[in-house]
Amino acid sequence: MSTSAQIGVTGLAVMGRNLARNFARNGYTVAVHNRTEARTKALVEEFGGEGDFIAAETAEEFVAALERPRRLVIMVKAGAPTDAVIQEFAPLLEPGDMIIDGGNAHFADTRRREKALREQGIHFVGMGVSGGEEGALHGPSIMPGGPRESYDSLGPMLEKISAKAKDGAPCVTHIGPDGAGHFVKMVHNGIEYADMQLIGEAYQLLRDVAGYSPAEIAGIFRRWNTGRLDSYLIEITAEVLSHVDAATGKPFVDVVVDQAEQKGTGRWTVQIALDLGVPVSGIAEAVFARSLSGHAALREASQGLAGPKAVPLGKDEAAAFADRVEQALYASKIVSYTQGFHEIAAGSEEYDWDIDLGAVSSIWRGGCIIRAAFLDRIRAAYDARADLPSLLSDETFAREIAGAQDDWREVVIAAVRQGVPTPGFAAALAYYDALRAARLPAALTQGQRDFFGAHTYRRVDQEGSFHTLWGGDRSEVSA
Amino acid sequence: MSTSAQIGVTGLAVMGRNLARNFARNGYTVAVHNRTEARTKALVEEFGGEGDFIAAETAEEFVAALERPRRLVIMVKAGAPTDAVIQEFAPLLEPGDMIIDGGNAHFADTRRREKALREQGIHFVGMGVSGGEEGALHGPSIMPGGPRESYDSLGPMLEKISAKAKDGAPCVTHIGPDGAGHFVKMVHNGIEYADMQLIGEAYQLLRDVAGYSPAEIAGIFRRWNTGRLDSYLIEITAEVLSHVDAATGKPFVDVVVDQAEQKGTGRWTVQIALDLGVPVSGIAEAVFARSLSGHAALREASQGLAGPKAVPLGKDEAAAFADRVEQALYASKIVSYTQGFHEIAAGSEEYDWDIDLGAVSSIWRGGCIIRAAFLDRIRAAYDARADLPSLLSDETFAREIAGAQDDWREVVIAAVRQGVPTPGFAAALAYYDALRAARLPAALTQGQRDFFGAHTYRRVDQEGSFHTLWGGDRSEVSA
Repeated sequence: MSTSAQIGVTGLAVMGRNLARNFARNGYTVAVHNRTEARTKALVEEFGGEGDFIAAETAEEFVAALERPRRLVIMVKAGAPTDAVIQEFAPLLEPGDMIIDGGNAHFADTRRREKALREQGIHFVGMGVSGGEEGALHGPSIMPGGPRESYDSLGPMLEKISAKAKDGAPCVTHIGPDGAGHFVKMVHNGIEYADMQLIGEAYQLLRDVAGYSPAEIAGIFRRWNTGRLDSYLIEITAEVLSHVDAATGKPFVDVVVDQAEQKGTGRWTVQIALDLGVPVSGIAEAVFARSLSGHAALREASQGLAGPKAVPLGKDEAAAFADRVEQALYASKIVSYTQGFHEIAAGSEEYDWDIDLGAVSSIWRGGCIIRAAFLDRIRAAYDARADLPSLLSDETFAREIAGAQDDWREVVIAAVRQGVPTPGFAAALAYYDALRAARLPAALTQGQRDFFGAHTYRRVDQEGSFHTLWGGDRSEVSA
Repeated sequence: MSTSAQIGVTGLAVMGRNLARNFARNGYTVAVHNRTEARTKALVEEFGGEGDFIAAETAEEFVAALERPRRLVIMVKAGAPTDAVIQEFAPLLEPGDMIIDGGNAHFADTRRREKALREQGIHFVGMGVSGGEEGALHGPSIMPGGPRESYDSLGPMLEKISAKAKDGAPCVTHIGPDGAGHFVKMVHNGIEYADMQLIGEAYQLLRDVAGYSPAEIAGIFRRWNTGRLDSYLIEITAEVLSHVDAATGKPFVDVVVDQAEQKGTGRWTVQIALDLGVPVSGIAEAVFARSLSGHAALREASQGLAGPKAVPLGKDEAAAFADRVEQALYASKIVSYTQGFHEIAAGSEEYDWDIDLGAVSSIWRGGCIIRAAFLDRIRAAYDARADLPSLLSDETFAREIAGAQDDWREVVIAAVRQGVPTPGFAAALAYYDALRAARLPAALTQGQRDFFGAHTYRRVDQEGSFHTLWGGDRSEVSA
């Protein structure tokens, strides 16, 4: 048995297989292993010519094939299967070896695992990988957490297999300790949900309010893709909308059941934001919109509810309206990213991760689903000022939103008037208006809470906490 | 030591003390116990004249003082303190005895505890109690879960100490097995958050768009309180808004810091809804609005952002606008309750609780923070049809919302145009429009997901799952 593999991959479903091939294609010798041996054999038979693979039949063989310190990537399902694989391999490893979890783990699990393995001297790296199967093979965006020193040895390899941004920079960086990598990957997915929801709302408005056909809307998205919205998701939206169903000759989008599915990460992003006290209304509306769409019986039962039916605009007005929708989409997108980066900053603060937000936006520029020209601007904003209170505090974004906001409002108004649901656009605008409000009704909320629960309040003109004797003479006491 | 107490309360902070007094005032002999004995003595010294108390110094004395089957109410902090008290008392109890947790436990903890104690033959009742200190003393709304048979013995006592609705019905019912009571209490609180947020938005609109003073707005809320919005929260809103700060002579609401605080239940309601796949956008926006208000530095940094400043209406227009706000508030409230009851129905389904939604609305009619005339109508809706797909499917509510929706839209439009944040009104309207939409952009979402992740989609005209070979000739394959 050769002991020359620089890296090993166990778990050879499509993501693991493609990641192993990516390492091999980049000149690394890769030990490969799978619970059922057939997959290991199939990989080597089918793709052995792409590079140097060492097929290991048993866990012991697999570990023995790895150079020390060992770098062992596990690509199995999140949850119990990941724990099972860790328990299988950890006893076979030595201090200084690395286990790299490239699955979609919840960051809290990653924290737990990192802590347990640290006590055994094993470096555990929770590694977010974005870009799907194609990304895994040709270059994903990679978000590794875990101990800093693990990156000294692992980082150069990841930089080689990762996607490269247009400026050639590898789309990987050490995100921070323990669960930081999986946390950032989670928020990436939450932002992806929001991006997709906003695109969906733009599509619906162009269809129902502007009166365009899917093919015409594909053309509009193609045009948008040459401007500041230039991104993978806008690009594929045009592809999907221009596609015609062969069986019926109808636009493809019209033959697809309009019930969106989801995996866990969007939901997690909102749940964790709630724990951290970060408002992520845009991401939440995107997750809710998907779940609402799936409640078929509820929707069916609601078909008779009163409301306007959109009346499409004339051709000239439609073109002007489409330009407004671009403004609304762009402004809402800025808000989604503002909320997502706020969550990352809050997580970093809570767990002492010291995450470089500029670096995060930088490594999302290639390989992943939300890759976009826009991320260069976010990086520039954080490069200019690392402690930016929020993306909206960046002068460029603030100026762009100032230019967009009249149109943004008109688009939401048109949607409300015509009865087209735009939860994402509306939530983003409400967030924007709430942030800039001089006073919020939260003062009334505090008054109510003091009234019914003696929860106390603070005053604008004095330090301390106070309570009004609502049931008595309504005098105020210090609390 | 007397062994004649029908019920015991351990944990004599204000909620426990008041609940014990409530039992005693209703003729029950109440054993009282506290970790530090001083509180037990203080209770008996101060309130001993209200009824029959047995002060127990030790856990053993406390348990010995109770009639069998023992009914032992624990009123301590949720989380570890509750577990500690259970562990202290469980070994002293016998099969058939009851432990009743009247704290604000997470329902998942209640499920865990019920299961563990069931194995020892002890009935564990997770009991939601709403109404704050005053409610605990004079009659709360009570939401007990746990085994059905526990209610045979406990129910009559709870019915005696509970609040009574205007028709005299006690505000307590057996909600369902294990964690059902704490679950329903949690959603109650989520709905409370939403109610308060919607009232806050109405206030802000009346202030900034209509141009009314807090005192004038108090008058408007008083008027609303005589109609279909008749409720405790509307009533106290008028009280808070009419209150003048003695120190400054200013409206009280203007001297309170506009940063709302929160405990955990609103957040839990949203987190659990996400797990259950139930869209609760109105509740989520209420929780986010509170957390946003507390981000002082972020708000400070956002004060220069571009946007309209509201220009108050003239007097005549203001009065008409106020009527519209009432419509918007009422319609949004229907949506909040629709979402909350959907969450309860989903929880009931998930955990086999068989919750009677009409009974839930019925016991919220008195004692608790969200008590309202409105709940009679919800009860009527579920009485008329227990399997109502949603409150919006009830003819009365559908008709009311049909009558309200033009005004609702105009209010959201005014808010958007004038830059007043109304995340709750807007989210409720978007939910309404999404439910009644014939087609949603979720079809595009599914197309995108199939494009970048081969996640497959369903077709409107055939059974099965399909995938388009986007990277190939774009033919369709069965998946």
